[in-house]
Amino acid sequence: MSLLQQTLSAIKPVDRTLLQAAQSRLDNKTKPIGSLGQLEELASRFAAISGTLAPDASRKTIFIFAGDHGVTEEGVSAFPKEVTPQMVFNFLNGGAGINVLARHGGIDVKVVDMGVDYDFGSLPGLIDLKVANGTANFTKAPAMTRDQAVTALEAGITLATEAKSAGISMVGTGDMGIGNTTPSSAIIAALSGKPVRDVTHYGTGINAATLENKIRVIETAIAINRPDPQDPLDVLAKLGGLEIAGIAGLVLGAAASNLPVVVDGFISTAGALIACEMNPVASEYIFAAHKSVETGHGFMLERLATKPLLDLGLRLGEGTGAALAMLLIEAGVKILNEMASFEDAGVSKSR
Amino acid sequence: MSLLQQTLSAIKPVDRTLLQAAQSRLDNKTKPIGSLGQLEELASRFAAISGTLAPDASRKTIFIFAGDHGVTEEGVSAFPKEVTPQMVFNFLNGGAGINVLARHGGIDVKVVDMGVDYDFGSLPGLIDLKVANGTANFTKAPAMTRDQAVTALEAGITLATEAKSAGISMVGTGDMGIGNTTPSSAIIAALSGKPVRDVTHYGTGINAATLENKIRVIETAIAINRPDPQDPLDVLAKLGGLEIAGIAGLVLGAAASNLPVVVDGFISTAGALIACEMNPVASEYIFAAHKSVETGHGFMLERLATKPLLDLGLRLGEGTGAALAMLLIEAGVKILNEMASFEDAGVSKSR
Repeated sequence: MSLLQQTLSAIKPVDRTLLQAAQSRLDNKTKPIGSLGQLEELASRFAAISGTLAPDASRKTIFIFAGDHGVTEEGVSAFPKEVTPQMVFNFLNGGAGINVLARHGGIDVKVVDMGVDYDFGSLPGLIDLKVANGTANFTKAPAMTRDQAVTALEAGITLATEAKSAGISMVGTGDMGIGNTTPSSAIIAALSGKPVRDVTHYGTGINAATLENKIRVIETAIAINRPDPQDPLDVLAKLGGLEIAGIAGLVLGAAASNLPVVVDGFISTAGALIACEMNPVASEYIFAAHKSVETGHGFMLERLATKPLLDLGLRLGEGTGAALAMLLIEAGVKILNEMASFEDAGVSKSR
Repeated sequence: MSLLQQTLSAIKPVDRTLLQAAQSRLDNKTKPIGSLGQLEELASRFAAISGTLAPDASRKTIFIFAGDHGVTEEGVSAFPKEVTPQMVFNFLNGGAGINVLARHGGIDVKVVDMGVDYDFGSLPGLIDLKVANGTANFTKAPAMTRDQAVTALEAGITLATEAKSAGISMVGTGDMGIGNTTPSSAIIAALSGKPVRDVTHYGTGINAATLENKIRVIETAIAINRPDPQDPLDVLAKLGGLEIAGIAGLVLGAAASNLPVVVDGFISTAGALIACEMNPVASEYIFAAHKSVETGHGFMLERLATKPLLDLGLRLGEGTGAALAMLLIEAGVKILNEMASFEDAGVSKSR
């Protein structure tokens, strides 16, 4: 059995007994029942996933998966594709948005080359899991072969299981890849059957004419490749990106190893969606970080039946939303661990 | 001229030039323009308020204003009023929700006795600014005299100006006072003319019958006291609470001394509303932390024309939402200070 198949069968529902025990513990903290809202849900689910009523949430890692996209030839982005490797250097030098937010939150950042069209050689700090020098232009051929997609998925799975073994308490997803809102919109359109126009937006800030082109490009890609919506691996291979496959793999690996996984915005959610189409139970391990400005994101979150933690008008990617969300999740877990009960504090419970 | 009058006249609009300069600096960071959304607005406004393009956001203090309410005699809360002093002890012992979240965010917590109906004696860590042993039952008389309201406001003002002098970079508001959603709903009803029913909710978790009673109690209070909606001090004195007055004072003092102030949920926003009715310019210094579950809160935020940072279904008070929001504001400020520009990082700007 392949690592992918093994992983998919290893994903089990989150422990309901532990979930309830954590909520009972929260209900006896010195506060009106339920008054910390979503923070309580975070805490109890985190505990149940981690398998303990006193989970640690302090050891946090965000993986930024980087990859290039052949479809950038079609002029779908506001930035040239050289920006993908340039940003990888920016991540490694600590100057990007994600670096700032990760330092703020005490989060470790790992940069993973899944398929950047640039030869980094051996670069300290960069995890080299390159599958190819970018995807093919999916208006002309499938973005990846099925084998490439599986290799990229398994790379993400391995990162998650290694993180769990190393004692990491939660992982987050991030992405870098000029052009990657285009495959993300293509994925949600293919899976949901929604019109491309309804799930395609301005990305890094294209103008109205480029948006029209982007919509046509995605329509062409779907018409030419005929992805099978019942086969998420087919959708991923034909329309996805190598970084999106890495993200999907990280989600599956996290779910299989009882590791909470914080999913960033639009591109990351496309990866998470592929993972959850492969095994819907994986969604129980996901914390959706924020609601992206990209119009297609709402549909994705609906399909994952999850409510994002933040709605700050973010559309940067890189894991920036995940970094902020991790701060809130850690806060929730500390409420569970550190807050006094009515008995501890000698506070009256009700009239 | 009284301290209150001095403070009201010292509040000036936030520096527009600095606001724009901060946004220009953000526009040259290595990200698509505007892609960090609300985080960028936070950062530029924080810079403009603080009077520098390189503001520090690390020294954070939340003031928890505590006070009792005569109206608890009318059975408006799910908890007995003894819980107010019990929770003050819980704050001082570090066991409450706000303590946990403040530690998480590196935030200092100061507990202020504005009017708890309990004799704490001289208690280490408690700031004694007690104006009275709670307010009067406002179904029978004004909650406070006008003088008491001014004294409480000025106590809050002084705390803000002292914080500024001590080098604190932002302050937050918190509240503790069994029964205090009742005066808060009364204040918004009186100021807006909205039906009491539309702005009154379940507070700490009362049942439907108690909610009906709470609505009647507020209607009676407004009918008996006839607060003048054109005179926010009159509304505060007749319907408010001593902790709400302290919060209003903190907001005014912060605005007058160019100190960013993070306003927690429903009760804190009632205080902020009084402050902004006294001088609308004060709203430029306010960061609304979160959207409370209390139905009246939306109306308050609308009236303040501000968008809250978080929507996590919180309804605890104490400054818990402010503590979480401070984490996001500090994150935004670090983006301004620490993120690389396109030139720094050698990243291409566009196609």
